[in-house]
Amino acid sequence: MTSNLAALTTLYKTTLLENVIPFWATHSIDKRYGGYFTCLDRAGSLYDTDKFIWLQNRQLWTFSMLYNQVEKREQWLKVAQSGADFLVQHGRDAEGNWYFSLNQAGQPLTQPYNIFSDCFAAMAFSQYALATGEDRSKEMALQAYNNVLRRQGNPKGRYNKAYPGTRPLKSLAVPMILANLSLEMDWLIAGDQLDTVLQKTVDEVMGDFLDNDRSLMYEYVAPDGAHVDCYEGRLLNPGHGIEAMWFMMAIADRQNNRNLIEQATDIVLSILNFAWDEQYGGLYYFMDAEGHPPQQLEWDQKLWWVHLETLVALAMAYRLTQREDCWAWYQKVHDYTWGHFSDPKHGEWYGYLNRRGEVLLPLKGGKWKGCFHVPRALYLCWQQFEQMQSSQA
Amino acid sequence: MTSNLAALTTLYKTTLLENVIPFWATHSIDKRYGGYFTCLDRAGSLYDTDKFIWLQNRQLWTFSMLYNQVEKREQWLKVAQSGADFLVQHGRDAEGNWYFSLNQAGQPLTQPYNIFSDCFAAMAFSQYALATGEDRSKEMALQAYNNVLRRQGNPKGRYNKAYPGTRPLKSLAVPMILANLSLEMDWLIAGDQLDTVLQKTVDEVMGDFLDNDRSLMYEYVAPDGAHVDCYEGRLLNPGHGIEAMWFMMAIADRQNNRNLIEQATDIVLSILNFAWDEQYGGLYYFMDAEGHPPQQLEWDQKLWWVHLETLVALAMAYRLTQREDCWAWYQKVHDYTWGHFSDPKHGEWYGYLNRRGEVLLPLKGGKWKGCFHVPRALYLCWQQFEQMQSSQA
Repeated sequence: MTSNLAALTTLYKTTLLENVIPFWATHSIDKRYGGYFTCLDRAGSLYDTDKFIWLQNRQLWTFSMLYNQVEKREQWLKVAQSGADFLVQHGRDAEGNWYFSLNQAGQPLTQPYNIFSDCFAAMAFSQYALATGEDRSKEMALQAYNNVLRRQGNPKGRYNKAYPGTRPLKSLAVPMILANLSLEMDWLIAGDQLDTVLQKTVDEVMGDFLDNDRSLMYEYVAPDGAHVDCYEGRLLNPGHGIEAMWFMMAIADRQNNRNLIEQATDIVLSILNFAWDEQYGGLYYFMDAEGHPPQQLEWDQKLWWVHLETLVALAMAYRLTQREDCWAWYQKVHDYTWGHFSDPKHGEWYGYLNRRGEVLLPLKGGKWKGCFHVPRALYLCWQQFEQMQSSQA
Repeated sequence: MTSNLAALTTLYKTTLLENVIPFWATHSIDKRYGGYFTCLDRAGSLYDTDKFIWLQNRQLWTFSMLYNQVEKREQWLKVAQSGADFLVQHGRDAEGNWYFSLNQAGQPLTQPYNIFSDCFAAMAFSQYALATGEDRSKEMALQAYNNVLRRQGNPKGRYNKAYPGTRPLKSLAVPMILANLSLEMDWLIAGDQLDTVLQKTVDEVMGDFLDNDRSLMYEYVAPDGAHVDCYEGRLLNPGHGIEAMWFMMAIADRQNNRNLIEQATDIVLSILNFAWDEQYGGLYYFMDAEGHPPQQLEWDQKLWWVHLETLVALAMAYRLTQREDCWAWYQKVHDYTWGHFSDPKHGEWYGYLNRRGEVLLPLKGGKWKGCFHVPRALYLCWQQFEQMQSSQA
C-alpha cells in the first residue's frame, strides 16, 4: 500500500463515489414498490426480494449522509426518499415498533423481536430529516430513539428466551449502539440529555465490558460487569470490540478527553494482537476468551465489516494519536482488507471469506450485508486521511 | 474399507462398545448433581458445565437403548438413572414443558421455546421406561409425546417471530421427528393411533416436502407443499433429508411397503448426488436449491451427524434393496466418514470439520453434540450388517 496520505484520501473517496455507491444506486432500487433490494450477487443481480429492516434503514442512512456530508446530489436524495417513503408506510407495527423484515411489497414477515431495527431507524430518519428538513422525519427519528431508550433494559422483549434470574447477562451491543446513535442524533437531542447518555455509555463500555487485565472487550457480562463462565460470558467478538472503540474515540474527541483516546487505542491494538490469524491473516469473527471451542461454527471466517471497522478505528486512532504502532497495524490490515474483500471486476466488496481468505459466499449483499459498512467505512477513512493531510499542510 | 460384512459388523460393534460408550461413561457423568456433562474437549476434559436438555435426554435414550437392546449391564442402567433422576427433578416448567437448558445444578437457563426438547424427552423416557418398567417413566414419556402432538402446529409457541399470515411455512423437522418418535414409542401407543400418526408423517414428508421433479427434500414448504421463493423456501439440509429417508424406510419395512423403500432409496441417492462436495469430499451442511448463496455461513462445513445418518440410510437401503448403487455410495461415504471424523487417539468422533475436512472445533461434545448420533448410528449400522450377514449365512 501507499503510505501517502493524499493517495489514501483519493483511494477511499473514489472507491466510495465511483464504485460502491454506483453499485447500490444501479442495482438496489425497487422501482415498483420503493425500498431497496439487498440480496445481490457478485455482479449485482437480484436473487431474493425480501426487505430486511436493518438494511433498509442503513441504506436510507447512507444516501442521506452522503447528501448531507459530501454533496447535495438530487439523485442521492431521490434514492433516500424511495426508502423513507417505503419505510414510513410499512416499517412499523401498530405500537410503533420496527419489524425485522418485510416482503417486497412491504407486508410484515418477521415481528419486531429486538431493538436494533429501531436503532437503525432512528439513525436513518435523523440523517434523512437533516437532508429534507421535514418534521415528519424528525418525529420518526425521535420516536424510534425513544423506543430504544425505553426497551434497552430488555432488548428482545417478549421474545427473550432467557429464564429470569438464573444468569442475568447484559450485552455490549446495547451501550455501543446507543453511543453511536446518540452521536448521530446530537442535533435532535437536548445537550444535557446527550451528555448524560454519552457519559453513561462510556462508563458502561469501559467500566463493565472491558477486561482491564487483558485489555479485551467482552460481549456479555453480568449486570455488575463480572465475567460469567459460560458460552456467552466467554465470547469475544473482535470486530464488535474494535468498532465500539472508535465510537469511544469519537466521543472522546468531542470531549477532548486524551486519556480516553489513548485507552481506546490501546484496546484496539490489544484486540488485534489477540484476534489476528497469524497463519492466514485477517481477524477471526468470534473467539472464546479461554481458548475453548466457541459455539459459533463461523468463528474462523473473515467478515467484511470486522475489517472495515478496524480500518476506521486505526485511521482514527492514528489521526488522533500519531502513534507508530497504529500506523503499522493500519498498513497490515489495509493490505489484507483491500487485497481480499474488494472486487475490482464487478464493484463493491465481498462480505464473507473463509479462514483462508477465499470467497465463501459470492454475494455483494444479503440478509445482513447491505449498503452500510462499506460506504460508511470508506467515507470515514477518507475523512481521517483528508484531515491528516490538511493538518500536515 | 473392507467389503466383508463380518468385518463391518465387528468394526461398528467394537467402536460402539469399546470406544464411544466408554468415552461418555468416563467423562460425562456429573457425580455431584446428576445429569450429564456434554461440553468435552478432544481428550474428554470438561470446558463448560451447562446442561442442554436435547443432549441430556439423548444420552438417557442412548444408555437405556443399549440396556434394552444390547445387554442388561447394570453400569448402563446406572448412567441412565443419573440422567433420568436429574431430568425428572429439573427438566420441566410448571406446565410440563421441557426447558431448553439448565445450569449444572439444574436451575433453568433457557425457556421451553420449541417442541424438540419434548420430542427427545419422550424418546428418552420411553426407552428408560422399557428398561425399568416404572410407571413414572411411562407417564413422563406420554406426557412429553402429548406435548409434541398438541404443539406441533406452532412448534415455537409464543417465541415464534413470524408475522401471522404473510408467508406461512411448515418445517420438515416436525413430521420427520414425529415419525421417528412414534416408531420409538410403538410399545406405549395404541396400534390404531400409531398407524394413523405414522401414515400421516409418511404422507406429509413424501407428499409435501419432497420435490418430485428433482427428487430432493426441501426443509420448508407452504402448508399445501408448494415451494416458496425465499431463503427458507429454497433451503436444503441434505443430512436432514437423508435422515428423514431412513425414518421412512423403517416405517416402510414395518409396513412391508416395497415401493416406499425404493422411493426413499432413490431420494437418498439423489440428495447424495446433489450435495456431495466433488472437490474435497463430504456432504455440505446447507444448500440453496437454486444455487443462490445460503444465509447459513456454515453451509460448506462437514458435520458428523450428516455423515453418520447417511451411513445408516445407505446401510439400511442396501440391506433392504441389495442395490449396487447403494453399496457404491456406502463405500464412498464410509471412507470419508471414518477417515475424517473418528479420533483413534482419544476416542469418540469430531463433530465439526471445515469444507476441506480439517477439524474446525477440537471437541467431542458441546451445545449440540452429545452422546447420541455417533452411538445410535454405530448401533444401527452394526445391526444392518449383522442382519445381512445372517441372511447370507
